[in-house]
Amino acid sequence: MRVQKFAVSDAAFERSPGQTGDIFAGNVVDQRHGAPVTIGFGRYGKNQTLEETMTVDDVMVVLEGRLSVSSKAGTVSAGPGEIIHMPKGETVTIRSHEEGAVTAYVTYPHWQEARAD
Amino acid sequence: MRVQKFAVSDAAFERSPGQTGDIFAGNVVDQRHGAPVTIGFGRYGKNQTLEETMTVDDVMVVLEGRLSVSSKAGTVSAGPGEIIHMPKGETVTIRSHEEGAVTAYVTYPHWQEARAD
Repeated sequence: MRVQKFAVSDAAFERSPGQTGDIFAGNVVDQRHGAPVTIGFGRYGKNQTLEETMTVDDVMVVLEGRLSVSSKAGTVSAGPGEIIHMPKGETVTIRSHEEGAVTAYVTYPHWQEARAD
Repeated sequence: MRVQKFAVSDAAFERSPGQTGDIFAGNVVDQRHGAPVTIGFGRYGKNQTLEETMTVDDVMVVLEGRLSVSSKAGTVSAGPGEIIHMPKGETVTIRSHEEGAVTAYVTYPHWQEARAD
């Protein structure tokens, strides 16, 4: 692999699997490219909810808007420039608010492969 | 581990090893915490230069300012909301510019352990 730069405009957004809401993910690096991590951008419409049990460690950096994540540890909320780490095995409910949200994410290992297992 | 949220104010910044410039890194999750990735924030003063050969895959999300990264593939430049992926094994020169930069980063595996090997 080589050093690469990515902008949100490089992401081909697809609806997150298993949900029908206005939540989209677009990988820019994943299992097709030979790196150990998946890198991508996420886009959340306003007032969306996504519940899942993490099959990978997922690190989200909020770029725009705000996300709240509820888990057994309580609820955390992050705005621009803040990070939420969702460890593998945790059951989480991710919520966007009135302004929606845009995120950058890194997962280890590749989330699409982990979901397919 | 539990779900956690981090802001740049949570990072205890230390000068990056092997350099004497105005470049600091502050891990918020690393080998002490049981996750497979290191998560942190970086801070670059203006017009700084850091050259290194990557011992890990490093994903930087630029939060403020701008960074340029030169490698055998050429030079890429990223501003707020953009990502630079520096794969393991690449030799890179990271440059900040007049406005400095703040980043969020994720490395796999843990960069402090990889440097100690």
